[in-house]
Amino acid sequence: MKLATIRTAAGTRAVSLDAASGSLVDLGVSDVGTLLAQPDWRAVVEQADGEKFDAAAVDFAPVVPAPSKVVCVGHNYRNHIREMGREMPSYPTLFTKFADCLIGANDTIEKPKETDALDWEVELTIVIGQTVRRADEESAAAAIAGFTVMNDISVRDWQFRTIEWTQGKIWGDSTPVGPYLVTPDELPGGVRPELAVSTVVDGQTMQSDNTADLLFDPVHLVQYISTILPLRPGDLIATGTSAGVGHARDPKIYLQPGQEVVASIDSLGECRNTVVEQACER
Amino acid sequence: MKLATIRTAAGTRAVSLDAASGSLVDLGVSDVGTLLAQPDWRAVVEQADGEKFDAAAVDFAPVVPAPSKVVCVGHNYRNHIREMGREMPSYPTLFTKFADCLIGANDTIEKPKETDALDWEVELTIVIGQTVRRADEESAAAAIAGFTVMNDISVRDWQFRTIEWTQGKIWGDSTPVGPYLVTPDELPGGVRPELAVSTVVDGQTMQSDNTADLLFDPVHLVQYISTILPLRPGDLIATGTSAGVGHARDPKIYLQPGQEVVASIDSLGECRNTVVEQACER
Repeated sequence: MKLATIRTAAGTRAVSLDAASGSLVDLGVSDVGTLLAQPDWRAVVEQADGEKFDAAAVDFAPVVPAPSKVVCVGHNYRNHIREMGREMPSYPTLFTKFADCLIGANDTIEKPKETDALDWEVELTIVIGQTVRRADEESAAAAIAGFTVMNDISVRDWQFRTIEWTQGKIWGDSTPVGPYLVTPDELPGGVRPELAVSTVVDGQTMQSDNTADLLFDPVHLVQYISTILPLRPGDLIATGTSAGVGHARDPKIYLQPGQEVVASIDSLGECRNTVVEQACER
Repeated sequence: MKLATIRTAAGTRAVSLDAASGSLVDLGVSDVGTLLAQPDWRAVVEQADGEKFDAAAVDFAPVVPAPSKVVCVGHNYRNHIREMGREMPSYPTLFTKFADCLIGANDTIEKPKETDALDWEVELTIVIGQTVRRADEESAAAAIAGFTVMNDISVRDWQFRTIEWTQGKIWGDSTPVGPYLVTPDELPGGVRPELAVSTVVDGQTMQSDNTADLLFDPVHLVQYISTILPLRPGDLIATGTSAGVGHARDPKIYLQPGQEVVASIDSLGECRNTVVEQACER
């Protein structure tokens, strides 16, 4: 299954991609988060016969517009850890975002006037499909509804103002997530997907790796994070990024208004976003 | 005004304290977050004539049970920064919690079986009353609905597993917040309150300071954080803690099952919580 939340004249709608026709079919609820909160969501998708939309013409909202939590992981690609000369960590490094950070897969990214250090981070992102706490391996795997793409846009100067990264990671309307939630049965590797992942800025490949290189895989992350607090339907876990971010280059490269940044993961799709100047004071 | 969210047989209810009778009066909505989302919430409180409850007998829920964000500040008491031999920081250090972390002012605190390093941090906590982004000083002050008490219970061993504090700060059902939201007009110092703040564990005073010692005051914090992302009605900002946490003592002291921890702020009230063993696997 491929699920999305789209914006229509009647508000957002949860839809599923009908493989035969290539259309998106209305699922009867406002968004994928609301869908996943229904225990029988897979049956709802299988029986979908609502309004149809042209997948090539829709406006994607964040795949889950209002998750109760977004947990992000740092230092998780083995190649990247090795090239930085770091030891393999014993534990995942965690930080967070809020729903207010999220934008759609093709929305513009406004560069805040307060920074000139806007950077990219493509991330395989877990979407939770059922509530779990202190999950064992089996229940962690079962709690993964599917995967999507996030570009964890980071404001590097604010990120490194203090020892905690948070203030560089939670900017409003900064973070594309989508376009689709793809269920594990459609992916090589299933709940531990093995997918090429890349970021391209104005045609230049900046990041290129494979999600098989993750040190802490999605099942492990669901177990680890659910030890700390409950994970609920629609919650997002961004699994970390690979080498090639702009801040780690010499010289450093940051996103500029007018540029297009494409964060792609094979079988999941891409977040394709144009960077623009901040439009107003909000 | 003093507002609270209480648990009743019919679910949670927002209430206000009637100073004359000492009763809590039902405000017609389920919780203080829902109340604050109504632009005329002050008028709703002034006209309250719903069911009355005995303030001494109610069961307090988190004062805002489901804030869209909880932002916390570290390194913010000047006395504490000085005693640690640190320079005064140029920027507040930020980290986060989620709604799933919050418990009521008198709920038990379950010590997770995964830690023996459970610690206290009493914090003056801002409750946001209207949406603001990039607030100037005046609109930041106007956006502060009032203040409450948080005990930012921290799992120190997990907090310091990696360079990011998050995984020690977001444990489920860990963090008492309440009992009351008190509006600035009732507080010495108003939106920059000057209030004695303390933590007492089994009768022994562990923290004792005054919120006038905050390096970054509440108005400044609303301006700073709202630069990064919108703040919305019911959002919480915990303003940091003073000297005296258990982890910084020699020898270190951590909370044990059977102990009572009381986090108090003058004019706001107290979170009084008993620590218990983890009851089940959830």
